[in-house]
Amino acid sequence: MRYGVIGTGAIGGYYGAKLAQTGKEVHFLFHRDYAYVEEHGLQVDSCDGSFHLDKVNAYQSTAAMPVCDVVLVGLKSVNNHLLSELLPPLLKEDTLVVLIQNGIGIEEDVQKMFPTVQLAAGLAFICSAKTEPGRVNHQCYGYINIGNYSCKQQEKIDEVVDDFRKAGVDANEVEYLEARWKKAVWNMPFNGMTVALNTQTDILLQNPNTLQLVKDQMMEVVEAAQACGVTNIDEAFADKMIDNTVHMTPYSPSMKLDFDFHRPMETYYLYTRPIEEAKKAGYRMKKLEMLEAELRFLEEAHV
Amino acid sequence: MRYGVIGTGAIGGYYGAKLAQTGKEVHFLFHRDYAYVEEHGLQVDSCDGSFHLDKVNAYQSTAAMPVCDVVLVGLKSVNNHLLSELLPPLLKEDTLVVLIQNGIGIEEDVQKMFPTVQLAAGLAFICSAKTEPGRVNHQCYGYINIGNYSCKQQEKIDEVVDDFRKAGVDANEVEYLEARWKKAVWNMPFNGMTVALNTQTDILLQNPNTLQLVKDQMMEVVEAAQACGVTNIDEAFADKMIDNTVHMTPYSPSMKLDFDFHRPMETYYLYTRPIEEAKKAGYRMKKLEMLEAELRFLEEAHV
Repeated sequence: MRYGVIGTGAIGGYYGAKLAQTGKEVHFLFHRDYAYVEEHGLQVDSCDGSFHLDKVNAYQSTAAMPVCDVVLVGLKSVNNHLLSELLPPLLKEDTLVVLIQNGIGIEEDVQKMFPTVQLAAGLAFICSAKTEPGRVNHQCYGYINIGNYSCKQQEKIDEVVDDFRKAGVDANEVEYLEARWKKAVWNMPFNGMTVALNTQTDILLQNPNTLQLVKDQMMEVVEAAQACGVTNIDEAFADKMIDNTVHMTPYSPSMKLDFDFHRPMETYYLYTRPIEEAKKAGYRMKKLEMLEAELRFLEEAHV
Repeated sequence: MRYGVIGTGAIGGYYGAKLAQTGKEVHFLFHRDYAYVEEHGLQVDSCDGSFHLDKVNAYQSTAAMPVCDVVLVGLKSVNNHLLSELLPPLLKEDTLVVLIQNGIGIEEDVQKMFPTVQLAAGLAFICSAKTEPGRVNHQCYGYINIGNYSCKQQEKIDEVVDDFRKAGVDANEVEYLEARWKKAVWNMPFNGMTVALNTQTDILLQNPNTLQLVKDQMMEVVEAAQACGVTNIDEAFADKMIDNTVHMTPYSPSMKLDFDFHRPMETYYLYTRPIEEAKKAGYRMKKLEMLEAELRFLEEAHV
């Protein structure tokens, strides 16, 4: 199987490099890092063992890339409108596009852009960052869940999962909508609240007022998911997310890093869209509506 | 009538000085400003005409003050526990204590401390600040609403209203609980949100996201008031508050000043207590619960 990676950053860079390291054919689209990677290769500093790819199939444009069996999309979701130009050169009849992005409604929107392409959700559970050109810093975790959205070839999903596992990445197939909402249980409180209160996960959970607020917000996601037909998600799951985070290294979620570095925040797919979907299903996420408004205010004030 | 003022700051200082200026006998308790005022008197810089009181009945302790017919309390509500020591020397059998403070539940708590004292709520609609020792800066507005809580002498309430009017202060008698909740419609969104987002009233209302959020929070107060039995308050009142604020000079509410100057915030009577009262009446103020949690987090982080 030939892989393509669009958005070779903290996420796409890590997973693509892991596959390439075990000999898979992987073609990477780079933006600012192209010239550096052509000359120096790609470095992955990883808690699971660092490694370096001397020879990388690096491109500045997807027009120059070959068609692929599987495309991993690691773009920030704020750039998904670019897919209408970026994706077509990589597509053949049965290409599977795995959207390794956060949020709700992503597959639905990309499917509208490409009605016949096969899509899957990629849920990355990983702390990583691209700290400098050609260098991915993988701090901890790293597993990925794959949720089939519109792929008619089950064996292709199986093969992707298998390729990840052979590359040392813990991968599992999951139900796509349940997986997206489960990830939102963690994402929606922690991404936004660390921005709104300019803090980190551990400090939020040490204060009893914000601990309760995080729990309340998680329960809004649980209840929204239930309203949207996802039944296998409950209060115990929220409690487990809090407990996991208490025992996690103090962490700045991706939205906090985006805000601090004056990059656009993924407010639409992380907040606006799930809030809208829940509302359509008859449920109001009131505290998360407030958080969304605060984020949109802060982003405007911060530019 | 002999007046006493406890808490001679932006509020107590202004209203007490206005009464004294027209010849009323007013006795002022000072804290840090005592020596300065003894020597220099009290200055009021006012949009309605500035004036200076050369001779002020100033005290460092209520033990030295005479008993009074009316006591105006202009303390920050975070200091109300001090009333158990401050008030008794000023009380005679029919003293009326006017609590010129923001929030819900204040009369109820003070009445528990002094079961037989006559109480009224004072709702001050004024932009003023104590900017330096012995100097009150009155920027705009200035009217005061008086709501009888437990005063059995209607003529006394009438006389206070009359004294204020003769002193050039627009005063009116109102229904106490309705007046407190109506003031909360403005106070709860603007005090907390200017702290949470480090901004001013005008900027909050210019952003469509926070404009909607302010409106949502106002409607939570309206619905909480209705749940607590206050019927004469509705969406039109909230819209009027927003419209008034749009046309107001950009303003930092008292809680924002308290936060910026590292003084304790009136979170309990402005948020915790109304949220509790509404909850007891079966209504959850969800966005204002979130704001309360954010304020408690920020106050702890800010010390």
